[in-house]
Amino acid sequence: MWGIVLKPVKVGICGLGTVGSGTFNILRNNAEEITRRVGRSIVVEQIAARQVNPTCDTTGINTTSDIFDVANNPEVDIVVELIGGTTVALELVMTAIENGKHVVTANKALIAVHGNEIFAKAQEKGVMVAFEAAVAGGIPIIKSLREGLSANKIEWLAGIINGTGNFIMTEMSEKGRAFDDVLKEAQALGYAEADPTFDVEGIDAAHKLTILASIAYGIPLQFEKTYTEGISRITAEDVSFAKEMGYAIKHLGIARRTSAGVELRVHPTLISQKTLLANVNGVMNAVMVKGDAVGPTLTYGAGAGAMPTGSSVVADIIDVARTLTADPTNRVPHLAFQPEQLSDVSMLPIEEVECGFFLNMKIQDRAGVLANITQILSNNGISIESVIQREGTDLVPLVVMTHDVKERNMNVAIAAIEALPDVAGSVQRIRVENLA
Amino acid sequence: MWGIVLKPVKVGICGLGTVGSGTFNILRNNAEEITRRVGRSIVVEQIAARQVNPTCDTTGINTTSDIFDVANNPEVDIVVELIGGTTVALELVMTAIENGKHVVTANKALIAVHGNEIFAKAQEKGVMVAFEAAVAGGIPIIKSLREGLSANKIEWLAGIINGTGNFIMTEMSEKGRAFDDVLKEAQALGYAEADPTFDVEGIDAAHKLTILASIAYGIPLQFEKTYTEGISRITAEDVSFAKEMGYAIKHLGIARRTSAGVELRVHPTLISQKTLLANVNGVMNAVMVKGDAVGPTLTYGAGAGAMPTGSSVVADIIDVARTLTADPTNRVPHLAFQPEQLSDVSMLPIEEVECGFFLNMKIQDRAGVLANITQILSNNGISIESVIQREGTDLVPLVVMTHDVKERNMNVAIAAIEALPDVAGSVQRIRVENLA
Repeated sequence: MWGIVLKPVKVGICGLGTVGSGTFNILRNNAEEITRRVGRSIVVEQIAARQVNPTCDTTGINTTSDIFDVANNPEVDIVVELIGGTTVALELVMTAIENGKHVVTANKALIAVHGNEIFAKAQEKGVMVAFEAAVAGGIPIIKSLREGLSANKIEWLAGIINGTGNFIMTEMSEKGRAFDDVLKEAQALGYAEADPTFDVEGIDAAHKLTILASIAYGIPLQFEKTYTEGISRITAEDVSFAKEMGYAIKHLGIARRTSAGVELRVHPTLISQKTLLANVNGVMNAVMVKGDAVGPTLTYGAGAGAMPTGSSVVADIIDVARTLTADPTNRVPHLAFQPEQLSDVSMLPIEEVECGFFLNMKIQDRAGVLANITQILSNNGISIESVIQREGTDLVPLVVMTHDVKERNMNVAIAAIEALPDVAGSVQRIRVENLA
Repeated sequence: MWGIVLKPVKVGICGLGTVGSGTFNILRNNAEEITRRVGRSIVVEQIAARQVNPTCDTTGINTTSDIFDVANNPEVDIVVELIGGTTVALELVMTAIENGKHVVTANKALIAVHGNEIFAKAQEKGVMVAFEAAVAGGIPIIKSLREGLSANKIEWLAGIINGTGNFIMTEMSEKGRAFDDVLKEAQALGYAEADPTFDVEGIDAAHKLTILASIAYGIPLQFEKTYTEGISRITAEDVSFAKEMGYAIKHLGIARRTSAGVELRVHPTLISQKTLLANVNGVMNAVMVKGDAVGPTLTYGAGAGAMPTGSSVVADIIDVARTLTADPTNRVPHLAFQPEQLSDVSMLPIEEVECGFFLNMKIQDRAGVLANITQILSNNGISIESVIQREGTDLVPLVVMTHDVKERNMNVAIAAIEALPDVAGSVQRIRVENLA
């Protein structure tokens, strides 16, 4: 039964950009080790690319400019979708599945938005769709969550899952720089796109969080229900006051199961500087998962880049190669739970979410102002953990850190505070989490 | 093909101590979620225990005091070995395999010392032996290394893989306490055994490192070739000087592939306080893995305890349940690489290992002493990175941090330094690693 030489597994790579080139070069460079692991070789049968990538030596490989050639190639066992986007990519993936081919993809938007439809079709056809590379680049978080922690009820997860955002928050924290200034550098370094909306407004993180939450809780993908807030309104002053209180501000994706429903939210968050997560800096990613049995865990690594993301794509190819002949019933389900066992637990609107708040406002340095503000908070059932008040001649900053309170109550309190004549402009509000 | 109700998988649990009770209670408490994941239920068919565990309600379960009843029970699909030790446990595991049963174990000593023999028998019989819980408790590091990072050539790995040792090093660092003092507290808290040798002298860590290295490099288990050094000789002064230089002292297990062979070593190690690993405190564990494609990664979590270790045991049971009907050729191999593809690369003796050194000695506060010492280092090709010298009236401490040098050269240099009349007693030497 052992030692039989199995025939090679043939992959077709669609897209030879950053991730495509990483994937191709890993399959080439590490071919010998991969064969030693899998017991059969993994061969690139065909490549579809609009142009040559100078980092890839594709000599002798069947190359086409039409990705559908790959999806329709009878020689190809696994179609690797690395073209990005959600229109042509969807068509490509559905065609591949329809043709009975397995699919590996790094496309977070595609899975977050069209995953339910894709997995239903894959189930019907008995093929696998693997997407480790869609979340947190090289970190094997999908595998950890879906298999490594499969004994657990997941209580919550919280991740730094966008490297661009974390680079910006790290620079702001370490060097006291302003958001716009760091963003410009990130664009010059190639970490951020010319239009940075996708990264800094949290849409990319929301795609990834949607996928993680579905796997954690066995719920259908619900990207449209994710609360999303970016980091562009965070000031150097916020970062500095947070630091003074012992906190870092990180852009987190958070999913939590409560008795009232599942929270699904991306927003800037104050976390204690003593946590490992607060010490994840630069473009690196990390995801904390709290399971009922295992307790808190953290996984850290590169969240993007050709080789790290290629590492996850190739690991998926190896996984698929290993289960090619397995009874589909025994494969790890796409969303960790058997498809007929997915739960319809409701998502909690952000107004119902409870957490602490960091409030930063400008007030007239006048007797009675602080008393008015604390009275408003108290009237809304909000207790104060700490306060920083600066003295001055005119407008001075007041920073208040609160204990946990429902967002709905905080909204009422903030509206009342902003209506006070001695409070100038709007109150900056950043959520605070205790990740233990 | 989908939605068919599969028959339950029946496990027999041998040993109902800490890990056994955690495993049992997770299978009970999370039975519904586990069934939703696996698509079939996992049932405890039989328990073998010398005595009742008050945390476990075993009403109605077939219970025996003879573990071999479980290994010979025709109803049992998976034997879960949680009795510990390497004599009866070995016999139990071999009997189970001989009877065609799959095995799940948390026994690091058993795998590190007898793994080669156990895996050969398992291969012959076409069964699986799963051992995620043997390394780093609840952290799914075996799965990450063997599957999640399967695209990579592993360059090195370094881990805090003994919670007792890390608790001691953390207390020494945070509170300036002495080793003996903290050890006594660890014993009182139940973190350390009455005879703490296994933990503080690095034997337990060496078992775990042996397993990790074999999976990383596809080499047979070679516990006897692991260099092992404990933490009992580390002083509060060492910790304090290291801190002053920006370093933490951690008890690490390190495996590294070099062109000359594989390094396999457990010893106290200075690492930069800026690394995440240096900030892993208390009884928590963490393992860094550097792959050629993914770069540096880190996984963190509880390294011991009933529920965290049970989390890994149950994850293994689920994995085995999923692959029960898979062709053995396509399963993930025990040591990550196909058994006939294991490599016979040689282990590097500690004398051949290169790293930086932290030297702490007492010298006469006299002109020319430092010059003599630096001359000796220089004669042996050792360059100095930094020095701390304290002034005083009699014997004063001198701390030297060196750049990377082969241990063989350092041995010669230290012998020469210790022979100087102005150097009192022996030179404390602690290795320094740059984990980036």
